[in-house]
Amino acid sequence: MTESMNVWPQITALDEAAMEAARERQQQLTKPRGSLGRLEQLSIQLAGITGQLKPKVDEKAVIVMAGDHGVTAEGVSAYPAEVTPQMVLNFLNGGAAINVLAGQVGARVVIVDMGVNASIEPHPDLRIHKIAPGTANMARGPAMTREQAQEALHVGFAIVNELVADGVQLVGTGEMGIGNTTPSAAITAALTGASLSDVVGRGTGVDDEGLSRKIGVVEKALANNQPDPADPINVLAKVGGFEIAGLVGVILGAASKRVPVVIDGFITAAAALVAARLEPAARAYMIASHRSAEIGHQVILDELALEPLFDLGLRLGEGTGAALAMHVIDGAAQILCHMATFADAGVTDKE
Amino acid sequence: MTESMNVWPQITALDEAAMEAARERQQQLTKPRGSLGRLEQLSIQLAGITGQLKPKVDEKAVIVMAGDHGVTAEGVSAYPAEVTPQMVLNFLNGGAAINVLAGQVGARVVIVDMGVNASIEPHPDLRIHKIAPGTANMARGPAMTREQAQEALHVGFAIVNELVADGVQLVGTGEMGIGNTTPSAAITAALTGASLSDVVGRGTGVDDEGLSRKIGVVEKALANNQPDPADPINVLAKVGGFEIAGLVGVILGAASKRVPVVIDGFITAAAALVAARLEPAARAYMIASHRSAEIGHQVILDELALEPLFDLGLRLGEGTGAALAMHVIDGAAQILCHMATFADAGVTDKE
Repeated sequence: MTESMNVWPQITALDEAAMEAARERQQQLTKPRGSLGRLEQLSIQLAGITGQLKPKVDEKAVIVMAGDHGVTAEGVSAYPAEVTPQMVLNFLNGGAAINVLAGQVGARVVIVDMGVNASIEPHPDLRIHKIAPGTANMARGPAMTREQAQEALHVGFAIVNELVADGVQLVGTGEMGIGNTTPSAAITAALTGASLSDVVGRGTGVDDEGLSRKIGVVEKALANNQPDPADPINVLAKVGGFEIAGLVGVILGAASKRVPVVIDGFITAAAALVAARLEPAARAYMIASHRSAEIGHQVILDELALEPLFDLGLRLGEGTGAALAMHVIDGAAQILCHMATFADAGVTDKE
Repeated sequence: MTESMNVWPQITALDEAAMEAARERQQQLTKPRGSLGRLEQLSIQLAGITGQLKPKVDEKAVIVMAGDHGVTAEGVSAYPAEVTPQMVLNFLNGGAAINVLAGQVGARVVIVDMGVNASIEPHPDLRIHKIAPGTANMARGPAMTREQAQEALHVGFAIVNELVADGVQLVGTGEMGIGNTTPSAAITAALTGASLSDVVGRGTGVDDEGLSRKIGVVEKALANNQPDPADPINVLAKVGGFEIAGLVGVILGAASKRVPVVIDGFITAAAALVAARLEPAARAYMIASHRSAEIGHQVILDELALEPLFDLGLRLGEGTGAALAMHVIDGAAQILCHMATFADAGVTDKE
């Protein structure tokens, strides 16, 4: 992807020396070696990402990108498309689950209109980067042009750059877009070759008939658009969404700035998959928060070899799982930064 | 257990009306029904425990009980017994993992010397209720007398009562005691009939030889003491520990005050098992935080039908898993308290 190489700085490998120093420090902290399990591994990853023996993730942001989807005309969602702008207003008013869970962990919520099919009044917490008022219906043609996909990706990249410049040390990914498990399933099938029954799920809650219809719609979208798995931007344009494309930019931007990025559920994982195909080195900067109840999520987790921190049966999106996971990630960093060593504390080490 | 019925108030069932109201409210919050999975179930449990539609768990405490074990003379631990008082000092100095993780979630850490085999200087954060300087070696006779077990239990009960009177709304259980996976395994085998290979694990990290020795020691302790599974106090006295007995009192005390109590790993689960055998109604007040890497934990989780919130490969104890879980539990409560309903937010409900 020489084209993609031009639009963001190269993403480098994790800092091996910092990881080795963190690994060594974990051996000296006052606990049986390895007894903090995943927290120890996470802390070593954070050291590698940031290049710091004592990584800090105090300043947190969840970037929630919203967009509408022409494919909702095919009846793929249990909710009407008007819910997308209604939920954006709910985010701005602080009434949604992501407001509660991000607030709990001290993360700012950055809401971005990437392509909502309604005019939302300006609000200090809303960034308006509307590529178009919703994608085209991918069942009948490409969801967007290649230029639109790239523009959306640049928006995500610019927003994360600005947040990092403003001090953000941990980025969470979130989304809102009625219908967006459908493009996510199409992206996953196109890039991994997984069968549709493994990637198309019930989303917000379609019944059996709705699920069959949804599988048929994804099949039609893939057949009509013939997305090219060797060209992730092509896949994104043909069967993606504006919020998904924006999140690809967020993920690549965070990785290029050596900032850890928390993946939420299925839709953000589809963005992560595209990001990893564009820049394989980005994968090491990702932390999978939870295992979604939405079936296709597991296909992507397997493909990227990401092991989520927990499985609480969440399937809401908005970045809710990412926000919850930020507490665990911060805890891992704080363990490395603040625990006493055997020598500091005068505790006898293992015989 | 008429004897036990006299020492703490009866523990009542959860408040069904509050649970039904919480269940109904979850259906009206601005998210697809059920999409917050375990968080929704947790919030309903919290409503049932507290009797409040909008339960609050802002004030948190982790009670870390410490005790020594005569059975360490048999070489059952990878660490020497002197580490118990050393770690208590580490807790008091704020250098241990529980200090970091409790601090992160805003929980006070209440450290209790239930029977450490050393004189620890008075400290404002330490409560000294030393039943004896360590239990007797259960491989050769009872770990403690029945009276000592009851005294320890009363200490736990009194401490949690005092904390609840002081405003604590969520109690976490933690422990420190070199060798204490050995009595925990003996308690679990005695009360459930599980085979020793399913309940004896590596604790802080014994090798294969140490593990065989540990199994032999538990076998000997059970054979020599013949604990009576129909009498949980008898089991606790013969093959338990002072910190474990204290935690039984903490759990029963929290339940009797209608305060949710978070179970940490294997040792605190052994205390939970004894508590549930004494008062089956106590089980509904328990929240299992994590699935420990220590093998016997699963036996107790199965026995109590508790499903942990996460599995991060933790095996440290101290209440570390409980502290981490407090964030998720608080999040569940906050969702129920603070999210907008479809009607509040003007969001269209499912078609």
